[in-house]
Amino acid sequence: ADVNLSGYGRFGLTYNDGVPAGIAQTQIDTRFRLNIDASMTSDVGVEFGGRVRLQYDDNSATSVLTSTPTATGGVVNTTTTTGSGAQLSPADLYAKFGGLRVDVGNVGTAFDNAALMYNSEVGYIGNSSGDPLGSFYAFASGPYNANQVNRMGVAVAYSFGAANVRASIVNPNQQLDGLPGGQDIEYGISGDYGFGAFTVSAAYVANGAGITDNDNYYIAAEYAINDAGTVGLQYFDDGDTSFNAPGDEGEHYTLYGSYVFGQITAKAYVAQRQGGAGDDTAYGIGADYDLGGALLAVSVREDYDSNTLADFGVKFNF
Amino acid sequence: ADVNLSGYGRFGLTYNDGVPAGIAQTQIDTRFRLNIDASMTSDVGVEFGGRVRLQYDDNSATSVLTSTPTATGGVVNTTTTTGSGAQLSPADLYAKFGGLRVDVGNVGTAFDNAALMYNSEVGYIGNSSGDPLGSFYAFASGPYNANQVNRMGVAVAYSFGAANVRASIVNPNQQLDGLPGGQDIEYGISGDYGFGAFTVSAAYVANGAGITDNDNYYIAAEYAINDAGTVGLQYFDDGDTSFNAPGDEGEHYTLYGSYVFGQITAKAYVAQRQGGAGDDTAYGIGADYDLGGALLAVSVREDYDSNTLADFGVKFNF
Amino acid sequence: ADVNLSGYGRFGLTYNDGVPAGIAQTQIDTRFRLNIDASMTSDVGVEFGGRVRLQYDDNSATSVLTSTPTATGGVVNTTTTTGSGAQLSPADLYAKFGGLRVDVGNVGTAFDNAALMYNSEVGYIGNSSGDPLGSFYAFASGPYNANQVNRMGVAVAYSFGAANVRASIVNPNQQLDGLPGGQDIEYGISGDYGFGAFTVSAAYVANGAGITDNDNYYIAAEYAINDAGTVGLQYFDDGDTSFNAPGDEGEHYTLYGSYVFGQITAKAYVAQRQGGAGDDTAYGIGADYDLGGALLAVSVREDYDSNTLADFGVKFNF
Repeated sequence: ADVNLSGYGRFGLTYNDGVPAGIAQTQIDTRFRLNIDASMTSDVGVEFGGRVRLQYDDNSATSVLTSTPTATGGVVNTTTTTGSGAQLSPADLYAKFGGLRVDVGNVGTAFDNAALMYNSEVGYIGNSSGDPLGSFYAFASGPYNANQVNRMGVAVAYSFGAANVRASIVNPNQQLDGLPGGQDIEYGISGDYGFGAFTVSAAYVANGAGITDNDNYYIAAEYAINDAGTVGLQYFDDGDTSFNAPGDEGEHYTLYGSYVFGQITAKAYVAQRQGGAGDDTAYGIGADYDLGGALLAVSVREDYDSNTLADFGVKFNF
Repeated sequence: ADVNLSGYGRFGLTYNDGVPAGIAQTQIDTRFRLNIDASMTSDVGVEFGGRVRLQYDDNSATSVLTSTPTATGGVVNTTTTTGSGAQLSPADLYAKFGGLRVDVGNVGTAFDNAALMYNSEVGYIGNSSGDPLGSFYAFASGPYNANQVNRMGVAVAYSFGAANVRASIVNPNQQLDGLPGGQDIEYGISGDYGFGAFTVSAAYVANGAGITDNDNYYIAAEYAINDAGTVGLQYFDDGDTSFNAPGDEGEHYTLYGSYVFGQITAKAYVAQRQGGAGDDTAYGIGADYDLGGALLAVSVREDYDSNTLADFGVKFNF
Repeated sequence: ADVNLSGYGRFGLTYNDGVPAGIAQTQIDTRFRLNIDASMTSDVGVEFGGRVRLQYDDNSATSVLTSTPTATGGVVNTTTTTGSGAQLSPADLYAKFGGLRVDVGNVGTAFDNAALMYNSEVGYIGNSSGDPLGSFYAFASGPYNANQVNRMGVAVAYSFGAANVRASIVNPNQQLDGLPGGQDIEYGISGDYGFGAFTVSAAYVANGAGITDNDNYYIAAEYAINDAGTVGLQYFDDGDTSFNAPGDEGEHYTLYGSYVFGQITAKAYVAQRQGGAGDDTAYGIGADYDLGGALLAVSVREDYDSNTLADFGVKFNF
């Protein structure tokens, strides 16, 4: 029986020349993430545990409210406004035995946990236009949104040697006997395998984020050139979040690489989007300086809409 | 000076054939409970401490909100919807010296802490129709409701040998000089004593849950047949939550027993309600399988309305 | 990498004869404060860390809500009511190297952290009319208010020998390119120095609490008469929170002292306000009894409006 507290903090500056008029292009960005992990191993050898995440992100406006009654035209209404503080996630519970792990509740999903998926990210925040552009469920770092109050997930993961496979099911509202039209249970699978210098990864999700027929595909490979250099290539079909409407989220390819020079890791990616919101190219470069347990990082990116974004900051693990 | 984190997790399946049409009879049930206990022992030997509970229950919709302003008929209203995440309780503070303990704030009450009261429960969740049916205050695992914002309790407990006595007072709104009509301060007492194979327990609460004249009584005895078997009998007067209206919550009797066979504990109860919502019998059976620090449990119950309920799942302590 | 949990608890009785009719003059007061401090030291010697505070105060009504839709005159409105539980603050992140510390986010401000500023306080809660009467930002123990959701602070502190200097900047809304009229970025500086039996402290804040031209000044000195006795004198200019309106918050002087007799510390202060809400004198006396790691304290005070206030209770650290 054990409760372990771990997480990370980060802070720095972000720049975005694509913000609407009146919004500051340069802002300070902070995050504090604390994972509360409880676990115990029963005498029969099965490990049981659970996680709740405590997280604060600056500029977040969702955690608490004050209300001021106001009278409008003879009717007393309530003006609701929101404040901001650290927030707690819903819980994930799990059982683990050998290479098999079953999670229940606020689970990490098979699609979101696919290997290599976020490896093109640069900067201390970890951003990339090469990331998936579709919609699907993932572990929720904060409270579920209002329309997911009765959300319930089950996930299974199994590791054997250099291979990992995962499957997950998320019901957007388990309290209903049947979901309303346009909404369906999300099913996802993913797997990855490493052999020599290669790692390959693939994932599929049906009804991503509970949206009927929003099916996303993903396949990727990464190659370690030598001890210092890595390149990877990804393909994403980003599904269709507009149920029964024409058009979809399109697809995109991401090529990325990184190279370590002493304490510096240089990173770059280029991503090509087809269909969806238009055919466009996005790219980014970044450099991490290893402080030993912490990193100082800078990145500059251009997104699909040709906006320039940059960030510079520190991230540390605890 | 010490901060201790402990609690439990549980997950499993629940079945209820008495749910309204459109609601799923079978659902997944999860809970993650973390007690944050801080304590210190002063040089004079008095221990001081406090507790806040962090808890997440699935299908809970009370922790956070997003608001979308909407205009209806020329009046701008606020549509308030709630999300879901782990929640924090109000704090309990205490001082302890020898067998005497005084709690202030979100206290465990004398009535709710009465010995044997919940011993008829079965299953990994712990449910029984033999539990008290009346209304009274208890330690709040989540935030106080809106009408209890200024709630304040004081509780005293004393242990001497095999005897325990408790008294508690809870003011529904300590900020008011006098409570509004129909509302009163809750007073409760309870005590228990063990002699040989017998344990006896009794409790009384006046103005339970702050409702004027809602007085509840409870008396129970448990007998250990041998090392493995236990039987118990309880009587509850469940009070009257309808102030100044005819009728009350009635009374009920509970007979329960358990028997240990190796790693399995078999449990059963039968409860007879008189008055209140009607004269009815409810019963339940359950079996716990001891995993060593965790348990796997199944239960089947029939409630007073002849609905069948069942659950199957795991509970582990950490 | 380390997560440290510490804080304090307190509970007792408070009396105030100046409350409005219908409000209880005597109430029970409780607080539970838990600081969650994460830190790590990178290989280059820089320490990085962060803090989130978890706190519960009785009679607080700000942390959670339930909503009941009600129909008024054909329009469906939402009645919003708030509940009460422990709350989480926004996070402070920091980097520390030698005597220099930089904080980002929910920072302790230079003005609020000025030495000696709260030294006239008496009682287990720590109250004094000699405290600053103006408005300025400080570390937020709970969520930011609705109008501070995008608040962002940066603070720098440096210690060398017996001297400490601090500077801080807090932007009430960093998301805006320019703040609305009457609102400005808060700038603050403070410093203190100890030499022999003397400590001197001074602070200045411009646009306190983000209110344009709300500038506050503070200067103080404390003298240790001997091992047991201390006296201090403070001057505060409490700024002007009414932008572009006549009148201001005035200024006040505070004289205070304390003396240790064995396990008892006797304390007293007298404060003289000029301008602002009127020329008035306030005073208070208190006694702390040292329980070794905890204290039992009593205080009696008269505020500027000639109300009598008293409190009696326990505070313990963990």
